Amino acid sequence: MKRPLGIALLGCGTVGGGVLRLLEQNADRLAARIGAPVAVHRVLVRDRAKPRVEACDRAWITTNPNDVFDDDRVDVVLEVIGGVEPAGTYLARAIERGFGVVTANKTLVASRGAELCTAAAARGVDLAFEASVGGGIPIVRTLREAMTSDRVDRVVGIVNGTCNYILSKMREEGLDFAVALAEAQQKGFAEADPTLDVDGHDAAQKLAVLAMLAFGAEVNVAKIPTEGIRQLDGVDLRFADRFGFVPKHLAVGLDHGDRVELRVHPALVPQGSVLANVSGVMNAIALDAKALGPCVLTGRGAGDLPTAVSVVADLVDVARARIEGAGGLSTKGIRLAPRPIVPRGEGTSRAYLRFTVVDRPLVMATIAGALGAEGVSIEQMVQEGRGDAVEVVMLTHTCRMDALERALRAIDASDVVTRPAKAIRIEEP
Amino acid sequence: MKRPLGIALLGCGTVGGGVLRLLEQNADRLAARIGAPVAVHRVLVRDRAKPRVEACDRAWITTNPNDVFDDDRVDVVLEVIGGVEPAGTYLARAIERGFGVVTANKTLVASRGAELCTAAAARGVDLAFEASVGGGIPIVRTLREAMTSDRVDRVVGIVNGTCNYILSKMREEGLDFAVALAEAQQKGFAEADPTLDVDGHDAAQKLAVLAMLAFGAEVNVAKIPTEGIRQLDGVDLRFADRFGFVPKHLAVGLDHGDRVELRVHPALVPQGSVLANVSGVMNAIALDAKALGPCVLTGRGAGDLPTAVSVVADLVDVARARIEGAGGLSTKGIRLAPRPIVPRGEGTSRAYLRFTVVDRPLVMATIAGALGAEGVSIEQMVQEGRGDAVEVVMLTHTCRMDALERALRAIDASDVVTRPAKAIRIEEP
Repeated sequence: MKRPLGIALLGCGTVGGGVLRLLEQNADRLAARIGAPVAVHRVLVRDRAKPRVEACDRAWITTNPNDVFDDDRVDVVLEVIGGVEPAGTYLARAIERGFGVVTANKTLVASRGAELCTAAAARGVDLAFEASVGGGIPIVRTLREAMTSDRVDRVVGIVNGTCNYILSKMREEGLDFAVALAEAQQKGFAEADPTLDVDGHDAAQKLAVLAMLAFGAEVNVAKIPTEGIRQLDGVDLRFADRFGFVPKHLAVGLDHGDRVELRVHPALVPQGSVLANVSGVMNAIALDAKALGPCVLTGRGAGDLPTAVSVVADLVDVARARIEGAGGLSTKGIRLAPRPIVPRGEGTSRAYLRFTVVDRPLVMATIAGALGAEGVSIEQMVQEGRGDAVEVVMLTHTCRMDALERALRAIDASDVVTRPAKAIRIEEP
Repeated sequence: MKRPLGIALLGCGTVGGGVLRLLEQNADRLAARIGAPVAVHRVLVRDRAKPRVEACDRAWITTNPNDVFDDDRVDVVLEVIGGVEPAGTYLARAIERGFGVVTANKTLVASRGAELCTAAAARGVDLAFEASVGGGIPIVRTLREAMTSDRVDRVVGIVNGTCNYILSKMREEGLDFAVALAEAQQKGFAEADPTLDVDGHDAAQKLAVLAMLAFGAEVNVAKIPTEGIRQLDGVDLRFADRFGFVPKHLAVGLDHGDRVELRVHPALVPQGSVLANVSGVMNAIALDAKALGPCVLTGRGAGDLPTAVSVVADLVDVARARIEGAGGLSTKGIRLAPRPIVPRGEGTSRAYLRFTVVDRPLVMATIAGALGAEGVSIEQMVQEGRGDAVEVVMLTHTCRMDALERALRAIDASDVVTRPAKAIRIEEP
């Protein structure tokens, strides 16, 4: 048997603990697949005193990063700290030092993925990040392989379990956003400060990682048009249901060649689509590739074990390549080029619209006229209620967002509506 | 640059043509990922005169297998002939000769997979067969990686596009089986002789391959309890709909440790499940793994390009390992042991039952008594019609198949029913 493959683990929270447990429980199978036994040498933490999982030998624990980077026995570093710093500095150092790197850190990959990949490829080491998107769903792997002999045109994902849980509850139990959020928090599916999730920032980071792999696009994550789910109203979910739609919070990516269209927003998907039945904290990613056709992967998007499984799967790849003297080859295959993101207004969608109007002549003419003036055409319409609180709901054909928004501003400024119009995109994955 | 990686293609039908086109169109990306350019040297066919895709150089074509096996430039053989022979002999020869092997041949892998894997591992070459199940769905890969650090308990798949197309049509358009089959044949989704598909044999072969990868089980495919969809009746599909179920043809695998439960049959799945919305010729495979949790992969199950994408993805893996001098390592990781299959009668399921009865006293007592005597308990019941053609539909709790069948035989032999009972399993993926 070859000398053991040396591991340093950066961070030892729930995912890190899960990784240590998987390494312990599957030692034989891992050794067989890698071609050498795996030995953990260092576990870098901030708080030495904190209790750790049983699989974590206290002797491994250190609070000093130099203990990791000065350890000649280390071959591969597994990073499960999260956040841009200090994780980013650690990974840059690990690459410079010639260690293979596996990370579960979407924030870091979304903001510095291209830079880290380039550094790793130049140094002849691998940087693997399957666990950074979609937890246990093998999406990074699938995209990388599809990219080898295929062209991915479109990626549509339910990538935030908190949003999906809240929307599922709102739809199934008729709950308001605030109530569903409180319930998600109580069950541990939402953070005390839910901003990152419910305002779409987490999904935007994951979309940036998906765009890297699906389209080879290096993008500025801050430029991704991003909307959360706070504005969704129970009334709209009930109308959506009548039209045969289910509300989902989506991350959408389209490759337009010179530019990429990336956007994160709530959307209505048809009840008969696979994504419609992805409920609760489950995640799903739908791809459309030229040769492969449509393909959907669903699974648990988060959680210590699903994410740990992805970290260990990446470890196997990185370790094998390293042992075989082929480190960096896989990372070199990730070819990235900076690509501008299509501005929000230039994107197109079908849309669901709701207007609260006063019931009197010319109301419909005003609305239809304003939409028509901007080239937005109506596919279906229903009207509900009488008197002062009439709801008019419309589904449009595909239109440009800026045209739609100009039309809605004109309608909101008119005297036929009593409240601002509501608009939700319709996406057909 | 290293010397080109030499390829021989065995078979050049639609999938083979697709492979050649992908190799041509993606030459640069493939060379980057593999670490050497790819050169096709031989294409083995039966009929030299037949027209081939443009990407197929006539100079490659041969009808003599020795031209392949005597060619020292060949590194990897891609087999897309199908069927047990002559493909099996060719692959055995290729392995003996020290070539890496990629196959899309489910029939061969299902019947001789263990033997071929053992031979390949012993010879230090890889045998890859992603394309043998689920066309473009990366299921083989996902299972192999999950197996490294996880335990798969359950696999439920919609793996036959013909059955799924026919069932979708029967359900959505209220067609009878014969009409839906004729339509599928006309559209090219079913063969002139549809036996292999509609009687479940194709699905059984795929299930045997899945069981190899998910459970490490080497099984006798002929022993898999296998039912097709010919017996399904429109009446049952309408009742199923009322109870909230969708009919699917499933391949189900469960790991019971000492034995594996493998079965292929029509089943009702809940409308809210992901599998329920997998329609038409799409395939899907749902896994349940200990650490990963539930996970569903859907995509095109067949077709030249999706399958070709999988063949090329496998080629990349086999070629890289070979170039790096690590051939056979991956195949060695597939550990198989012979495992008996649970006999049909010992399997358990919930079930949908329909009895056509005469409307008179004691009918229900007779039916309920016969079921109860065998320990089959009833969860729900509806009765429809009057007089001589009353339909009684029941959903049972989980029961053993042999117990249920004994009860149904007793009921069929009684004088309360006018036609044999209908039973369909209920599966909750």
